[in-house]
Amino acid sequence: MKAEIIAVGTELLLGDVVNTNAAWISRELAGLGIDVFYHVTVGDNPARIKSVIEQAVSRSDVLIFTGGLGPTEDDLTVAAIADYFNVPLVSDPDSEKTIRDFFIARGMKHSPSNLKQALRPEDAVPIPNPVGTAPGIFWDVSARTGKPTVILTFPGVPKELYLMWERGRELLLSRQEKDGESRQVLVTRFLHFFGIGESLLGERLSDLMAGDSPTVAPYVGRSEVRVRLAAKAATENEALALIEPVRNEIIRRLEKHYIGEGESATLESAVASLLFDKGLSVAAAESCTGGLVSSRLTDVPGSSEYTLLNVVTYSNEQKTQMLGVSPETLETFGAVSPQTAAEMARGVRRLAGTDIGISLTGIAGPTGGTDDKPVGLVYIGLCGLGADADEAVVKKTMVNHNYKREDVKHWFSQYALNFLRLYLMGRLKPDREETPESPEVNLKPV
Amino acid sequence: MKAEIIAVGTELLLGDVVNTNAAWISRELAGLGIDVFYHVTVGDNPARIKSVIEQAVSRSDVLIFTGGLGPTEDDLTVAAIADYFNVPLVSDPDSEKTIRDFFIARGMKHSPSNLKQALRPEDAVPIPNPVGTAPGIFWDVSARTGKPTVILTFPGVPKELYLMWERGRELLLSRQEKDGESRQVLVTRFLHFFGIGESLLGERLSDLMAGDSPTVAPYVGRSEVRVRLAAKAATENEALALIEPVRNEIIRRLEKHYIGEGESATLESAVASLLFDKGLSVAAAESCTGGLVSSRLTDVPGSSEYTLLNVVTYSNEQKTQMLGVSPETLETFGAVSPQTAAEMARGVRRLAGTDIGISLTGIAGPTGGTDDKPVGLVYIGLCGLGADADEAVVKKTMVNHNYKREDVKHWFSQYALNFLRLYLMGRLKPDREETPESPEVNLKPV
Repeated sequence: MKAEIIAVGTELLLGDVVNTNAAWISRELAGLGIDVFYHVTVGDNPARIKSVIEQAVSRSDVLIFTGGLGPTEDDLTVAAIADYFNVPLVSDPDSEKTIRDFFIARGMKHSPSNLKQALRPEDAVPIPNPVGTAPGIFWDVSARTGKPTVILTFPGVPKELYLMWERGRELLLSRQEKDGESRQVLVTRFLHFFGIGESLLGERLSDLMAGDSPTVAPYVGRSEVRVRLAAKAATENEALALIEPVRNEIIRRLEKHYIGEGESATLESAVASLLFDKGLSVAAAESCTGGLVSSRLTDVPGSSEYTLLNVVTYSNEQKTQMLGVSPETLETFGAVSPQTAAEMARGVRRLAGTDIGISLTGIAGPTGGTDDKPVGLVYIGLCGLGADADEAVVKKTMVNHNYKREDVKHWFSQYALNFLRLYLMGRLKPDREETPESPEVNLKPV
Repeated sequence: MKAEIIAVGTELLLGDVVNTNAAWISRELAGLGIDVFYHVTVGDNPARIKSVIEQAVSRSDVLIFTGGLGPTEDDLTVAAIADYFNVPLVSDPDSEKTIRDFFIARGMKHSPSNLKQALRPEDAVPIPNPVGTAPGIFWDVSARTGKPTVILTFPGVPKELYLMWERGRELLLSRQEKDGESRQVLVTRFLHFFGIGESLLGERLSDLMAGDSPTVAPYVGRSEVRVRLAAKAATENEALALIEPVRNEIIRRLEKHYIGEGESATLESAVASLLFDKGLSVAAAESCTGGLVSSRLTDVPGSSEYTLLNVVTYSNEQKTQMLGVSPETLETFGAVSPQTAAEMARGVRRLAGTDIGISLTGIAGPTGGTDDKPVGLVYIGLCGLGADADEAVVKKTMVNHNYKREDVKHWFSQYALNFLRLYLMGRLKPDREETPESPEVNLKPV
């Protein structure tokens, strides 16, 4: 079955509301093995809604409408559908009772327009709304279209849609069974990577991306790349068995860049796992990122096991006073320098008494940049592991200066967490080919 | 001019990515007085992309494409458009140079597929991409369609689109002028509020919401409420003149909750303005928020004027060692207590030598809660203003424990920044009616 999701509402076309429903329903349909070929949004205009219905009927089997089920004159979805099929609307007695009860329970009187929401084509099945007054419908119109067409309607309010979906899903499933469609489940897995661009990743995986079971596709996320693996099979286990070997091969090829699997796979969670495993603690000294690295380190539940103290030293005086950065270093090399980063890392490690110290000093912009030290430049210092725990390694990184301040800060924090991750993995070596955008600078203690 | 926004990408139809671009572009077009009648999403399939182009040409004048401009084989947008109009693609020398330079600057070699991104129809105007390798195009195809059709393409990555839009907007404006269209501009303004719910706000503004020039509508955002004001007129100034008195009346009625106007109106920017105005500095001592308040305080450009040092003391030992919180206080009342919050605020103010000290101690979850001190509980301490600068006031706040850890932290930081804002405004009084969910606790120094 091919599906099309149609959102009705001028507020969407004005951009006042983002259509999150289309993505949500698409994921649900993918799980049922139903392909979605189009999303369409149309305003509260009868003629345009009708033209959209006409086209959807011609190219899709499952038409899922969201929005336009409210009590006002602008809410036209059900009327437009009935009008297209030239079918009269009747009032659903259960829906009508729900609406009356809804208002009685609130000590209010319903208005006549509220009862409009109980209208449906006679042979449509209502989908009850447990939290609002707008029921949906499931309507099999195959006898009218001569194709296996079904229509479902849901309110535009996401919370109502989510609660009503269960019933809609059941009706869709029983329809799939009735059609004797051998139903296939789609299983998807997301692998997260950092420090490799989409195109290089694509080249490394090109042979795997040519396959179709599972399909392998890269996505660019916020300062990371995700690889989506998806396989269809009769059961979830069969689909997973198709995914597993390809998943392992991808991780093997890109191990250095691999952060983890699924929504919770972030650089901070990868760092936390390594710290938990090794029983190590870390302290951060930040300047330009202002506490963002510290905040991300503590986003992981249980982070109090490895974080005791972090400091944000914005001024030179505080770098000296809190972290013991020498005034000569600040004067000779500047606050944004590998030397200062090294001393900050050593200073915070001593101050907090942790195994590892990490530091950041850079220029987040939009002002404060110079030709020598432009906006987007950051030095990240690390110390604590290796033969001499007090020896710091420093990484210099550049972030695009056109980004907004918050985005520059986010990129800085990504690089810092990744640097820490590689440090914990013992994989921190200068390697122009692997991380060409970020040449490592190895510094002896100054 | 009637516009249609077409998103290309199977990831959208799978629900892996939410199409936020359509809403963003729609708002921009509304500002130009261009009506948007349809949003369409189609997958990476040449035949279906072509059918969508055909339909869009037939019903719309301005076709705006997002996505499908990447370097891989799946990126088909420009090729499909050229194919539909039966026009060959040529390589744009500037775009090609940008792509080569992009890789050279990163010490990498471009792959041949990257150069595909420089291709465009010969008479299309490139829209440069300042942060990526995919340029867009502005292509006037009116000679080919016999109607005033223009096509614009943008990458699907929102940050790239936002940066490139300025050029696309200019090209659209000059096209509108050329067509001599009598254009009505729609001007919208968003006012941001914190500490008041949508329904209470709606009651306070119900008379203004009944008007239609400007229209007044509340939207619920992430832990805040926005009010949208919109008016149409021949000129921007005329529209602004309609908005102005209503805007002022809304702010007058809800002054205590008003954060500011427009996208940059955040609690941190409201706090920063007050600090700049008064020439005051602040230092933060955080526990449960792990540096998030510090990071937000430094999200504002120029924040080095008021932030010198912030500390994250996660352990009890560090609260004592760094901030001088007495071990007796920690033992008697616990780390999450108004007494500890007060001592942390005083301690960080002394340590940093700032005018104001702010502290947070609470339970971000998901674990660590007890019956007495559940997940979602936070104490926020402040000191530095008033007759006795060392006297701390402490606010107790509860956040819904069903939120995820990151969301709990975000709410905590919202309350802390709002508490600081009210403190700086001299408006920090217990007021059960105004903020029923957050009873203030005023503490003498312990």
